[in-house]
Amino acid sequence: MLYFIGIGISGYGSLPLYSINIIKKSRFVYLEQFTSPINVITINNIKKLSPNVILTKRWFIEDGNEILEQAKHDNVTILTYGDPYIATTHYDLRIRANKEKIITKTIHASSSITAIVGECGLHYYKIGRVATITNELKMMMTPYNVIYKNMIENNHSVLLLEFNHEKNFFLDPKIALKNLLKIEKVHKTNIINESTYAIVASRVGLDNQNIIAGKISNLLKIDFNEPPHTIIIIGNLHFTEYDAIKNLLTCVDPPQSNSDKIQTTTERLLNKYVPKLNIVSKQLKLHYNEKKLLNIIENAESYAKDAENFFSDGHNEIAMLSIGYAEGLIDALIAIHNNAKLKRFD
Amino acid sequence: MLYFIGIGISGYGSLPLYSINIIKKSRFVYLEQFTSPINVITINNIKKLSPNVILTKRWFIEDGNEILEQAKHDNVTILTYGDPYIATTHYDLRIRANKEKIITKTIHASSSITAIVGECGLHYYKIGRVATITNELKMMMTPYNVIYKNMIENNHSVLLLEFNHEKNFFLDPKIALKNLLKIEKVHKTNIINESTYAIVASRVGLDNQNIIAGKISNLLKIDFNEPPHTIIIIGNLHFTEYDAIKNLLTCVDPPQSNSDKIQTTTERLLNKYVPKLNIVSKQLKLHYNEKKLLNIIENAESYAKDAENFFSDGHNEIAMLSIGYAEGLIDALIAIHNNAKLKRFD
Repeated sequence: MLYFIGIGISGYGSLPLYSINIIKKSRFVYLEQFTSPINVITINNIKKLSPNVILTKRWFIEDGNEILEQAKHDNVTILTYGDPYIATTHYDLRIRANKEKIITKTIHASSSITAIVGECGLHYYKIGRVATITNELKMMMTPYNVIYKNMIENNHSVLLLEFNHEKNFFLDPKIALKNLLKIEKVHKTNIINESTYAIVASRVGLDNQNIIAGKISNLLKIDFNEPPHTIIIIGNLHFTEYDAIKNLLTCVDPPQSNSDKIQTTTERLLNKYVPKLNIVSKQLKLHYNEKKLLNIIENAESYAKDAENFFSDGHNEIAMLSIGYAEGLIDALIAIHNNAKLKRFD
Repeated sequence: MLYFIGIGISGYGSLPLYSINIIKKSRFVYLEQFTSPINVITINNIKKLSPNVILTKRWFIEDGNEILEQAKHDNVTILTYGDPYIATTHYDLRIRANKEKIITKTIHASSSITAIVGECGLHYYKIGRVATITNELKMMMTPYNVIYKNMIENNHSVLLLEFNHEKNFFLDPKIALKNLLKIEKVHKTNIINESTYAIVASRVGLDNQNIIAGKISNLLKIDFNEPPHTIIIIGNLHFTEYDAIKNLLTCVDPPQSNSDKIQTTTERLLNKYVPKLNIVSKQLKLHYNEKKLLNIIENAESYAKDAENFFSDGHNEIAMLSIGYAEGLIDALIAIHNNAKLKRFD
């Protein structure tokens, strides 16, 4: 039989009660730490439970052949940080076990993701997609897009940081934040800058837990000490979330929302095109008195108005269709009657 | 001192090791079950730890005055299903405690959210925003929009179901799914129908855990027995997720993605307007030979082409702006030269 046991996030004490007997009765207990470091005290306490505890490497779990062979005849346990299956490696092994008719059982434990959201006082239903930040700039587009999409929906972004146990490497939150600023400079979607409000949660669940909130500019001045760390980029704060950050976290700046400071492409383009169209249409009305032409101009104005209404109703695509149509009407009219060149969107 | 302790999702056995001493040394141990039911065996086992265990109601935690008063002089524990703080009530109490200089400590435990995602073999970074489904149809727009936004991003939607312990009410997954189909009939965004692939995860973490995957039409025929239940609406399945569902869940239908079956508004409108524009522009070219007019028509065609390119690059708003502009050019030309009425978008 093959057991997947979560150690939880608080060291030995966060092991679930019923994991103890399973560890004791297992012929092989593989303790891996490739998703997050596990401290020496925890490892030593687990070793006291059984002489069969073996510290293992990532490749051994990924390969899995020896584990599966053993699990056909003996009880085998894989111990992992947090809740199992956040890393897909474990699940792949579970599927392989199942195909070989090996019974598996999972002991769930506390996970850093739910714990961090809870400790920060953020509402769970306001957490958007989770992403991972690595130290490679070319891998930053995924987290950058995730933050953008979360932020325009007012959601918070939980960012896990690269960890490589074998190289003893845990991405420093400061480097992760700097990489985000670098990507912003290239893509200029204007979703993140030095004033963006973020949270760095360090060692959540451990006695030396520390959660610091502030603008990125000030977070960049802080030494966050040992891992694990997680970053949260704030979307829009509910007042109870504001209260939680203010009262229970270490704030280097007062809490603030970020979502209200960013514009969607639709908002940005409407703000540019609608006023421009209204000025042009007013001027054109002075030049023409033919009813057919005035009719086109009035139609364009009414489509520009529609665009704003569609936008306030959340129908961004239709808003863009409408303002585009209005621009097209006016430009064709000018091109036909003024011999002007068709303007391109600038 | 005030302790918030998560019981976890697997009954007594999922209590973290270090919660036991805290429960034993607490003068008051409040056990609440307003986020999820807790079974009698678990309650009885917890009662064996301490004579001070009190089953409490939601209002007592929400009011909190007595708890805070007691925590000024004594150790007080609040025991809650899963991981604390998924319900904001607990966090509000923590903030109030902090303001009254009462020290608080949190013991995290397994949470149904991470456990369910893990048990289903889904990738955690593909989970979009979480929503709750209640039995009120007028409250369905939020989960419906959450599913839409998750699905167009290829993400899965975790849907928690309404639970009212005092009324002994847990929303049946079948009613939740039926309510989603009802809302779809009204709004016709075409994101959910009887063929949509979903998962119903029942009693995850308990010995009688059962996870069933299939099309909604077939899930509606199943009796899911006792709560708690959670629904996951699938977005786009990675092949390892497909494998996990197929091998480890009870499948009433083979796994399938839903995201590839839905269209965004942009895709739907482009599919309608681009071919239409190309037909009209071809006809118009036969009628005109004035260079100025041909120029406008060719411009419209090139904007229609741009719209498709912007769409494939993921720039939906600019795609809509472009096709709208193309339509506007053509319609103004027709109105001026053919005396035709300006067509509205139909």
